[in-house]
Amino acid sequence: MEKWPITLTSTKKVKPDADRLGFGKYFTDHMLLMDYSAGQGWHDPRIVPYGPISLDPSAMVFHYGQEVFEGMKAYRTPQGELVLFRPDMNLRRLNQSCARIGIPQVDPEEVLEGISRLLLLEEEWMPEGEGNSMYIRPFIIATESGLGVRAAQEYRLIVILSPVGAYYPEGIHPVRIYVEDRYVRAVRGGTGEAKTSGNYAAGIKAQEDVKSLGFSQVLWLDGIEKRYIEEVGSMNVFFKIDGEVVTPELNGSILAGVTRDSVIRLLREWGVPVKERRISVTELFEAHQDGRLEEAFGTGTAAVISPIGSMKWDDHDIEIAGGETGELSAKLYDTLTGIQRGEREDSFGWRYSVR
Amino acid sequence: MEKWPITLTSTKKVKPDADRLGFGKYFTDHMLLMDYSAGQGWHDPRIVPYGPISLDPSAMVFHYGQEVFEGMKAYRTPQGELVLFRPDMNLRRLNQSCARIGIPQVDPEEVLEGISRLLLLEEEWMPEGEGNSMYIRPFIIATESGLGVRAAQEYRLIVILSPVGAYYPEGIHPVRIYVEDRYVRAVRGGTGEAKTSGNYAAGIKAQEDVKSLGFSQVLWLDGIEKRYIEEVGSMNVFFKIDGEVVTPELNGSILAGVTRDSVIRLLREWGVPVKERRISVTELFEAHQDGRLEEAFGTGTAAVISPIGSMKWDDHDIEIAGGETGELSAKLYDTLTGIQRGEREDSFGWRYSVR
Ligand SMILES: Cc1ncc(COP(=O)(O)O)c(C=O)c1O
Ligand SMILES: Cc1ncc(COP(=O)(O)O)c(C=O)c1O
Repeated sequence: MEKWPITLTSTKKVKPDADRLGFGKYFTDHMLLMDYSAGQGWHDPRIVPYGPISLDPSAMVFHYGQEVFEGMKAYRTPQGELVLFRPDMNLRRLNQSCARIGIPQVDPEEVLEGISRLLLLEEEWMPEGEGNSMYIRPFIIATESGLGVRAAQEYRLIVILSPVGAYYPEGIHPVRIYVEDRYVRAVRGGTGEAKTSGNYAAGIKAQEDVKSLGFSQVLWLDGIEKRYIEEVGSMNVFFKIDGEVVTPELNGSILAGVTRDSVIRLLREWGVPVKERRISVTELFEAHQDGRLEEAFGTGTAAVISPIGSMKWDDHDIEIAGGETGELSAKLYDTLTGIQRGEREDSFGWRYSVR
Repeated sequence: MEKWPITLTSTKKVKPDADRLGFGKYFTDHMLLMDYSAGQGWHDPRIVPYGPISLDPSAMVFHYGQEVFEGMKAYRTPQGELVLFRPDMNLRRLNQSCARIGIPQVDPEEVLEGISRLLLLEEEWMPEGEGNSMYIRPFIIATESGLGVRAAQEYRLIVILSPVGAYYPEGIHPVRIYVEDRYVRAVRGGTGEAKTSGNYAAGIKAQEDVKSLGFSQVLWLDGIEKRYIEEVGSMNVFFKIDGEVVTPELNGSILAGVTRDSVIRLLREWGVPVKERRISVTELFEAHQDGRLEEAFGTGTAAVISPIGSMKWDDHDIEIAGGETGELSAKLYDTLTGIQRGEREDSFGWRYSVR
């Protein structure tokens, strides 16, 4: 029984320049599809030429937003292996997102096998060059036609691949952050811990507003008291205060990042004290005033580690780590990217080889 | 200058039975489209044969949920007029939703003109029969390709029409409601006051859970204290306590319903005291215990008035108005549907004639 049968494209695209890739702008020649219908379950797993998705205008995804997605990267190691970073965590999270949004579960192993096949098929698209990688975007949309507000009976899983450039083409460098106190991204009991489109739609206005003020990301506060720190842009966030590293606990409105988990494990391995707990924005700014806020950084698949150089909240505008990349941030970045790219020993067994 | 040029379909569909329409299951022969691109603005308004929307798999709507929609109904009056109910309010709300989600504003008059043309073109689809009507679904989706998280630069406005059946084919009757205390639909600072897909995705799991317990809708509480009443399913909600009508105030997490506004105005006109204020679920259940909770009903375009016959919260399960349709609920339903259908005098000027 051949799983994931492949239909090859008849017209290969011209590949983009490896030094002008950017993020999520180019896509490879093929994509992975699988369909769901009530009664039949997930069926028809297949790899086909990359091309448009055609949906009835009443398809539920256009109206009631039943959608979940994932994001991960594949790297080519110096030994020529094609590797993923902890894909089991992404696929588990995909199913957790599905559960929250009322979408039927997928078989993680089957999907991982499909992604591996797709990656091997598209191997010539793996971009050369320091820091480049292949971004993998699995997503599931409700495809059933009809305007009733309820869980759809038909879905499609799609996986597309995008060769992406280094997040820091000129080397890792800190960003300017704005503490958002009007808009809220998520609240306990809502969808914040799911990777679903509505969370991102909720954040776009705030993001555009602060961009025009010269900030690169928003720091989200909790939706209840607007006091506790949640995430930064679409990354998890860490602070080093007085030698101890703290990050917001997973409280139901925060996405459980794969990078977040990896950072926590690395720190524990290194003997650096790390705590998951509530962190108020007041505590943070007070720690800065007392000279105890040593570093701050975001974590996520795209940037891996994104140092925070300054942070504005109300009238307070503070500089962190002298506006430079902190020592621990740099070490985490080097270690994690080293493991991901196969340039460092993988003592945790985080790399997954696709062949 | 011909606005909204029409391309006619070459193959008309067979029209469905007027007594088996349901809601949002059948669509007419044509649809309205208009495109947006940065620099050019909204352009290419047109009416074309109803058919699939073809999008790149990386189209932003599939990933970051930039989407807004509206819902309204057209009726045929006994005099043969085709009328809409307060469409200016829907189009204003569409633009308010756009503002929250970072989507460019439309020209309300231009869109209303387009909808009118589409309705006239599809007049033979207007279903005959008591209580039937034409449901109008305008929506805007981010069509730009690419995986960066930001406001898209390209959008499409689509309007589709669906002949729908009476909401109460056997006459208005009360529903069973479950007070939801785990899941949250929206929170102040979030997207609750916008009509955007993510809000509905957030509600589907709760809705499916209570459906399987025999309830027809969820009563949403506020996301902060989980104490104050917000909406019921996708309707606004009203209670009659001790002769006074109360409804949750527009606090930023509630949709400003057109039916809600119309009910408030009618009640004022009738001299019935009505207040928009915070209402706790405790207050409600206490009022019931004291015999002061006289009626409860939801309001929305689909049902117009949906009487609430019983309500379960924790261990408490109460019956309202003896499980029957209350007197005021019935009067509001008759009056509003009468005005909408052109069977009653329209002293507020709410009807809009499309010709
Ligand atoms: C909202 C949000 N938070 C955090 C993260 C970080 O998660 P991960 O480390 O798994 O990429 C992401 C996605 O990358 C995200 O979208
Ligand atoms: C969440 C929500 N609340 C309330 C309403 C009622 O609004 P309207 O009376 O404008 O239909 C709707 C839509 O119909 C809705 O989707």
